[in-house]
Amino acid sequence: MSRTFKGLELRSTILASGELRLDLVEIEVGDPAPGELIVQVEATPINPSDLLLLLGPIDLGSIAASADGAGLRAQVAAGALASVSARMGRSLVPGNEGAGLVVAAGHDGEDLIGKRVGMRGGGMYTQYRELPVRDCVILPEEATSADGASMFINPLTALCFIETMRMERHDALIHFAAASNLGQMLNRICVADGIPLINVVRNAEQAALLAAEGAACILDGTAGDFEARLTEAAAKTGATLCFDPIGGGRQASVALAAMEATAAERVSEYNRYGTDIFKQVYIYGLLDRTPTILDRWVGFAWSVGGWLLTHRLRQIGPERAKALQQRVVDELKTTFKTSYSRTLTLREALSPDAARAYKRKATGEKYLITPHIE
Amino acid sequence: MSRTFKGLELRSTILASGELRLDLVEIEVGDPAPGELIVQVEATPINPSDLLLLLGPIDLGSIAASADGAGLRAQVAAGALASVSARMGRSLVPGNEGAGLVVAAGHDGEDLIGKRVGMRGGGMYTQYRELPVRDCVILPEEATSADGASMFINPLTALCFIETMRMERHDALIHFAAASNLGQMLNRICVADGIPLINVVRNAEQAALLAAEGAACILDGTAGDFEARLTEAAAKTGATLCFDPIGGGRQASVALAAMEATAAERVSEYNRYGTDIFKQVYIYGLLDRTPTILDRWVGFAWSVGGWLLTHRLRQIGPERAKALQQRVVDELKTTFKTSYSRTLTLREALSPDAARAYKRKATGEKYLITPHIE
Repeated sequence: MSRTFKGLELRSTILASGELRLDLVEIEVGDPAPGELIVQVEATPINPSDLLLLLGPIDLGSIAASADGAGLRAQVAAGALASVSARMGRSLVPGNEGAGLVVAAGHDGEDLIGKRVGMRGGGMYTQYRELPVRDCVILPEEATSADGASMFINPLTALCFIETMRMERHDALIHFAAASNLGQMLNRICVADGIPLINVVRNAEQAALLAAEGAACILDGTAGDFEARLTEAAAKTGATLCFDPIGGGRQASVALAAMEATAAERVSEYNRYGTDIFKQVYIYGLLDRTPTILDRWVGFAWSVGGWLLTHRLRQIGPERAKALQQRVVDELKTTFKTSYSRTLTLREALSPDAARAYKRKATGEKYLITPHIE
Repeated sequence: MSRTFKGLELRSTILASGELRLDLVEIEVGDPAPGELIVQVEATPINPSDLLLLLGPIDLGSIAASADGAGLRAQVAAGALASVSARMGRSLVPGNEGAGLVVAAGHDGEDLIGKRVGMRGGGMYTQYRELPVRDCVILPEEATSADGASMFINPLTALCFIETMRMERHDALIHFAAASNLGQMLNRICVADGIPLINVVRNAEQAALLAAEGAACILDGTAGDFEARLTEAAAKTGATLCFDPIGGGRQASVALAAMEATAAERVSEYNRYGTDIFKQVYIYGLLDRTPTILDRWVGFAWSVGGWLLTHRLRQIGPERAKALQQRVVDELKTTFKTSYSRTLTLREALSPDAARAYKRKATGEKYLITPHIE
């Protein structure tokens, strides 16, 4: 008496010509195997990391509707084509995480039918997602799918920043784009756990938002005296670690210089090779795809590197990862609350206006797709 | 019956105005304490790392003789003044390493008088250096001071590259500016120890020099197809580690891209975050002081960082360091042989013509100062 579920799914394809195509296709899923579930997806966010797969490195100005009006077309930026060669011609389903209602299960999981779960594993921009039980977390009774849609990437990223801080023996940290949803979570964690955090924002509204949540140190990265203020703050906190989701430009370099200036004040003797106090910047996002410019007037005890959640979860191991995930469930509506500025159906997510808006990745704007709503 | 030794010493001072002054001053040393030696310095190289202290970040065009003709004057480049603030007004003695004849010793070291030693610890551009016995290594009978003058920095740097490679679990490496004295040593070590090394040079003469010493892989970094060739070589060797003494410009980025392209071929599935094969570039010099430009089309499993010998010797510990030092002594005239293109007295080292020449840091040119010769 097997049942099938028919629905729509969002597909992103980049052709060899560099044309990006977003279309909805009809899918049908059914017969979950043992250990598997079928979930009606009710909420799935557009994270900056989802944009990599959803839109790729396209020119914002090239976004347009397809000829029949149902899909979206755009053009990959000149020079960025090589970076997407591995996905060319592949029809991919974006959406790293989401939440929804369990509508079917393998014979060993039938007690889960009717429950709401958070999901990871990609392919969430769809109406029905078939996936292993181990990629799901049952939501607390009072939680909605919107509450659980972003319970993996941002919460675990923020928590793993702290894991990295402790494993690599730093005592305090700097965070750029600190008013993002992720930044707000990181700030709440640091307030709760007593960890010195320097929040770098871009305007007064963002500063006010973090101040209202108890942030002890907030700097405006656009202020004329920012570098001096950052050096002061690094001195006060002892920060030797910085997380940067922007990547492009000079801010990694500025952070290294501030941390080194502070370190130099702590050591007595002049050393032409700089201090031996190790300074680390991790770039964990691609908000600005222009090159990172490192001025390197910071001696030799420094590193700038990529930081990716999946690598770090592997590093800390499954037991510790499970403990972090449990903290997220326990504090889903407080520390790890995500605010969305707009919700979109799958169809609306394909409109050129919406795409231009979410492509902009403005801090404080966050989109939620609700695939179950036609 | 204590004896004193009078001689000349080279001093480098940067004034608050940014003026660099090199002068010779008269010194007098005597009465070595127990555990100390006085060594008549016979040979001390001008390593790229010595130029940091000797000349600092001066404008090449500003080099001139002092009014009395005995000293050298130059001007720190605009914008680089902040980087030397900690040394302003201090009269510093350059010269990281050297070799010479023991002429006096504390009462517990008199058997060393008359022996030749290699020395580390800085302050070598002087006629008489008083220093602890523990900073000296007795040279083999047949070795001259010229043989022993460079027995610390380049040999231990090359050996510690391999230590870093093994500790950080890489199997092969890329080296930029590979025809340098250090590069030649690294190549000889890799040939002897069977380690895959990609030597990147800048012209055919440099390539021929390394080929004559058995280098298996030599690429010309100025060739039009360099990036493709580097990717091929990285694929063949499995290189995921690169050492770069240049620092400025795009070559770190090019190396990361080549290593990532190779890694991507080894993993089957397309991953929009790049491969999880970790790629490391260490910048260990400042041959080009312009910014490092990172294009970052390489996923997130990468790091670019500073690398400094003293930090690494601390990391490997005194026992391992001693074993490496012993290998240097044993292979002083073979693996760790240094060639000098020109020798200078202390006085000659202060001539504007000589300074312009050694400031250029041309690969294959290497200067040796012979302080004992007036």
